[in-house]
Amino acid sequence: MTRLKLSFALLMGVATHAFAVEGMWQPHQLPAIEADLQRAGIDVDPKELADLTRYPMNAVISLGFCTASFVSPMGLVVTNHHCAYGSIQFNSSAERNLLRDGFLARTLGEELAGEPTLRVYVTESITEVSDQVMAALNPEQSGNERYAAIDAREKALVAECEAPGGYRCDVYVFHGGAQYFLVKQMEIRDVRLVYAPASAIGDFGGDVDNWIWPRHTGDFAFYRAYVGPDGKPADFSQANVPYRPKSHLKLQPAGLKPGDFAMIVGYPGRTNRYRWSAEVADAISWQYPRQIERHGRLLALIDEQTQGRADAAIKYASSVASLNNGLKNFQGNLDGFAKIDAVATKTAEERQILKWAKAHDQAAGIDGFNGLKELLAETRATRDRDLLLQLLGYSGMYTSARDLYRLAIEREKPDVERESGYQVRDEPRLQGRLLQLDRRFDPQVDRALLQYVLGDLIALPAEQRIAAVDRWVAGDAAEPTPELLAARLDAFYPQTRLSVSEERMKWFKSDRKAIEASDDPALVLIRALMPSLLEIERQTQDRQGRETRYRPAWMATRIAYAEAQGKQIYADANSSLRVTFGTVQGYGPSDAVSYKAFTDLNGILEKHTGTDPFDATAKQLEAIRAGEFGPYAVDGTVPVNLVADLDITGGNSGSPILNARAELVGLAFDMSYESIASGWLFNPALTRAIGVDVRYLLWVMDAVDGAHPLLEEMGVKPAFE
Amino acid sequence: MTRLKLSFALLMGVATHAFAVEGMWQPHQLPAIEADLQRAGIDVDPKELADLTRYPMNAVISLGFCTASFVSPMGLVVTNHHCAYGSIQFNSSAERNLLRDGFLARTLGEELAGEPTLRVYVTESITEVSDQVMAALNPEQSGNERYAAIDAREKALVAECEAPGGYRCDVYVFHGGAQYFLVKQMEIRDVRLVYAPASAIGDFGGDVDNWIWPRHTGDFAFYRAYVGPDGKPADFSQANVPYRPKSHLKLQPAGLKPGDFAMIVGYPGRTNRYRWSAEVADAISWQYPRQIERHGRLLALIDEQTQGRADAAIKYASSVASLNNGLKNFQGNLDGFAKIDAVATKTAEERQILKWAKAHDQAAGIDGFNGLKELLAETRATRDRDLLLQLLGYSGMYTSARDLYRLAIEREKPDVERESGYQVRDEPRLQGRLLQLDRRFDPQVDRALLQYVLGDLIALPAEQRIAAVDRWVAGDAAEPTPELLAARLDAFYPQTRLSVSEERMKWFKSDRKAIEASDDPALVLIRALMPSLLEIERQTQDRQGRETRYRPAWMATRIAYAEAQGKQIYADANSSLRVTFGTVQGYGPSDAVSYKAFTDLNGILEKHTGTDPFDATAKQLEAIRAGEFGPYAVDGTVPVNLVADLDITGGNSGSPILNARAELVGLAFDMSYESIASGWLFNPALTRAIGVDVRYLLWVMDAVDGAHPLLEEMGVKPAFE
Repeated sequence: MTRLKLSFALLMGVATHAFAVEGMWQPHQLPAIEADLQRAGIDVDPKELADLTRYPMNAVISLGFCTASFVSPMGLVVTNHHCAYGSIQFNSSAERNLLRDGFLARTLGEELAGEPTLRVYVTESITEVSDQVMAALNPEQSGNERYAAIDAREKALVAECEAPGGYRCDVYVFHGGAQYFLVKQMEIRDVRLVYAPASAIGDFGGDVDNWIWPRHTGDFAFYRAYVGPDGKPADFSQANVPYRPKSHLKLQPAGLKPGDFAMIVGYPGRTNRYRWSAEVADAISWQYPRQIERHGRLLALIDEQTQGRADAAIKYASSVASLNNGLKNFQGNLDGFAKIDAVATKTAEERQILKWAKAHDQAAGIDGFNGLKELLAETRATRDRDLLLQLLGYSGMYTSARDLYRLAIEREKPDVERESGYQVRDEPRLQGRLLQLDRRFDPQVDRALLQYVLGDLIALPAEQRIAAVDRWVAGDAAEPTPELLAARLDAFYPQTRLSVSEERMKWFKSDRKAIEASDDPALVLIRALMPSLLEIERQTQDRQGRETRYRPAWMATRIAYAEAQGKQIYADANSSLRVTFGTVQGYGPSDAVSYKAFTDLNGILEKHTGTDPFDATAKQLEAIRAGEFGPYAVDGTVPVNLVADLDITGGNSGSPILNARAELVGLAFDMSYESIASGWLFNPALTRAIGVDVRYLLWVMDAVDGAHPLLEEMGVKPAFE
Repeated sequence: MTRLKLSFALLMGVATHAFAVEGMWQPHQLPAIEADLQRAGIDVDPKELADLTRYPMNAVISLGFCTASFVSPMGLVVTNHHCAYGSIQFNSSAERNLLRDGFLARTLGEELAGEPTLRVYVTESITEVSDQVMAALNPEQSGNERYAAIDAREKALVAECEAPGGYRCDVYVFHGGAQYFLVKQMEIRDVRLVYAPASAIGDFGGDVDNWIWPRHTGDFAFYRAYVGPDGKPADFSQANVPYRPKSHLKLQPAGLKPGDFAMIVGYPGRTNRYRWSAEVADAISWQYPRQIERHGRLLALIDEQTQGRADAAIKYASSVASLNNGLKNFQGNLDGFAKIDAVATKTAEERQILKWAKAHDQAAGIDGFNGLKELLAETRATRDRDLLLQLLGYSGMYTSARDLYRLAIEREKPDVERESGYQVRDEPRLQGRLLQLDRRFDPQVDRALLQYVLGDLIALPAEQRIAAVDRWVAGDAAEPTPELLAARLDAFYPQTRLSVSEERMKWFKSDRKAIEASDDPALVLIRALMPSLLEIERQTQDRQGRETRYRPAWMATRIAYAEAQGKQIYADANSSLRVTFGTVQGYGPSDAVSYKAFTDLNGILEKHTGTDPFDATAKQLEAIRAGEFGPYAVDGTVPVNLVADLDITGGNSGSPILNARAELVGLAFDMSYESIASGWLFNPALTRAIGVDVRYLLWVMDAVDGAHPLLEEMGVKPAFE
């Protein structure tokens, strides 16, 4: 059995492995790499780290999209400013601009409710459920049958786990299906904003410095978790009380210095370290270049359509930030790939593994590898279409119509049979998205987006076209044309009432029949497309089903091979809890250039221009120029940000940086530009996690923002009272 | 007397001065700073360096706009690739693209004549002529009288010096008129191109890397100086023989390492180190921002007008490069000023000097300082107009008409009374410029340039307007308007025959009467403007005349003040021979970033994209990847470029970098971006000269281009034969 072999390898305690730095380890793997951790300088027992019910693991929590930590016995939570952005924005108004000015609650009573979907997830257990899931599988199943079998098992496990209420449960897939773990998290629903510095500190450098080292961003903010008087998760209420976590991270104001051991605990989202060479080649030759082109076009289009319309521009600010972030990531991948011959490296590695596999009776692995080839060929055949369908997600009218109709369809089934994302547990999030659409929707921009994406869909080569789209555009004409599409959309926007919040809520409460009877053009469009979308989904799930056969088999061979070399293997990131460890150190990004491991306050003065995103506050500038840094001083300044060769990715934002004794010394918030391609092939020389130094966090709280009670709550004596 | 006091200070041997690195020293000053030179690590007697008739000074030569050195007993000359650019381009054709492919003469016979105006100037003597010049001055003279008196003395000295023939003589002004030196240079007219690497080496990084460290440019090329069989300068002839210089620089293939003493000898063009605070403030608040705006507009205009017209674009390639270079320089100045509070520093320094001056009987200096205030106020009053008049120089029709008419006017005077630039000695250069106009002129672009500049001239505030321009544009109308200007220019370009080379040569040979009788619209325009241009020139010269009273007086006080602090003073750069010394070392351009002192071949691989300007040749890439670096290897690679804290500026291009024993170890070719504002206020932490390492020069010649006979001629045994 693939799985057992794999588990065996994962649990094997091997003294050395090739990845001195690389590795996003599951907590339970840590005892197996104890020797490595010790050589790196750890000063706590790895077995303690493996125990989710003990310090420090039970102090590390998830916000769903970011990581955070408890830092006081009163449920105080620290995370990144950018992870708290939504809640800061939610509480901001023209009169009281918390984003610009920052926010500090002087008392518990002044704390502000976070944005409605904000949750704190406290992991209580991680249980392997591979046996339960795989019991539903047999070799005769088609891809779709396999997909459905796994899906049903996962949903049943989740439903059972969530039944008592107050918990969010999820099944995480490792190695493409070799292992399944059920994660049970207490879901705290009353989370309040306690403190955030001004954006000029918390987002200093903004998009310009995004992914960039050297950095000078005070990317931190504080929440507090509240529960009902009974200690159980509850909706926001004045009667709620601060949550008392089982443990909280101990701050170590001494921070770190170059060469020190450092460790990050958090929830990294996604890496592609075990993709095969042709998948990497496709990413380089097609995926990133095409995404750069299409994202660039979307950005240009939003810019054109919002010229001179400040209100519309604000509505798309978040889309623009996300598209720009994507662009920088895609380009960073290509720039990174230009430095390492990733395809050649992967190809050579594969050849070696395949050769070894032939010699070591690994027929299943070789079959798996060949299966992946077959899947890639299928994916390629419709990749243009699939990228365009993904971009349709930027149209608020399209996504609203799709979600409303799909929800109505799914609601006709028993909950456990509903499609993921449209189950009862997903409804609050769907409703929130539909309610808040007005804040990020403008008909003129939306129309241009649809014209662009649908226009390119009807211009695809015949074999990738979606007949239903063609028909909807063409109407009575023989062929769809951009002009017909324009005419369609001219009629569409004045007529659709989905742009009205109440109307969307009306449909949210309606059933399938009512939606199918509507003549709202957005619903008419989605009705026309839905059979095709469902068919595409079926095909995708069929591939995913087959992938759960091929990829684990190939991974099993990779793991057996690694084992034969005496190496440990960790799984690709999948948003589950991981630990990475390494050393605080700078790097040399290019010939004759070297970056130090720490930046300091002088860099803020250097970068300060007075213009966003380099507009340090007068208060901060004054405090820097005053030159009084108290206990936070190092060489006459205060360390601001730091880098360490830790293996993190998106989702790790807000993760605690821990020292050798597992004390909090910083917060991860980014990776260096040179790290980006490490998502595919780890480059230890250039990959660096970027974090806020605890001394900067404390100095800002103490000397700039006067957050003295919070410091005391965390056990730190203020120096600037 | 100001002058004596000054000379005394200059000649004073003071053991220490505040400028550990700063300083462009005249050779005769070196013995006075012997202790500093020795502390820095020099290993030759500074008195030897002060002697222009001995090694190494008599091996360092000038090309007029660049510095160069003799490097063999057979007149072989090394300088920068960008200093030889004109001659490489002059010898290039579509069939034989020497710029792209490089050039190597295998024999003396294969060497190619340089571009027609190319000269090698060998300095034979530098004689102080302050007494002779100042004898013509008295305190009663007006500014114009003073200007004329100085001008007449200078011209007489030059004429006398050049009388024997074969020499170029010039009077150089120091400290704004405190000292005058007559420089006598042998003028070698037959200079041939011997070797230049491909632009992909010699100009690697192009405009993108211009002013940038870290750098990877092989900015070197070789000429050979030829003289008649009698050893005297002669026009190009097959009968000429290689010039045998009195000495030539000895190459030291071991190069330098970080921390080593380094020295640069050359001809820096211009610095503003002794400008007073308001002049610096004007540069920051007006000069650079306005130049950035106007240069940006010119670039945009050339771009618009040459869209889709490759031929026209090529004609303006050199203007575009120069405008871009200017833009980067202006921006670099502003960026540099943002890091150092130059105005505050200068103001504080001035206050101290003025205070000291009042206490030490320095009334003349204080008067001088007040006089400079008066001059600045006058300059400000017409600065918009004057910048526009300067930009008119980008119009080939304007400059041709101006030069032709002005030359005809000046030719009516005895040669020594003619305006500088229009004397007999200047005629060959004027003729060359008129002849070569076709290569850099396109009527459509020229028309747009005139429309822009004249259009802005007629839109100036009344007090800066030039009545003659207004009248020429307005014609019979009451007021000039952009429309009338457009109509004027519509008629101008089809009608003028100055766009024809033969026509320009006809006028070059004509007299004033003939030009004044012409109805060519370009000549009609210049006739209308000339009285105003001459009047503006008279006003400018009057200011310059007064400046020769004020600035030396103020400088004398500054020098006396420096002397009182035990400090040496060097003069601002003025294109005369200077020496600067310091240490090979990198720098930290910003927080957490540090630059090393040397780049190496790996950086070429990193920067190589295959696209100009980062398109290393296949041959070079192969040689790098082969990894065989022979005697040029350092740590498994070859040093390419280096930086040292030396005080250089434009005109130093091609300057030899010498080690402590005055051996050639590199060629200066640029300054770092962070150095730019040091033209005004030297910042030792950030100012770095950039040079080609001798080991890279030798490796390219030896391993890439096979220039083995040249290596042998320089006394270096090839390793890759």
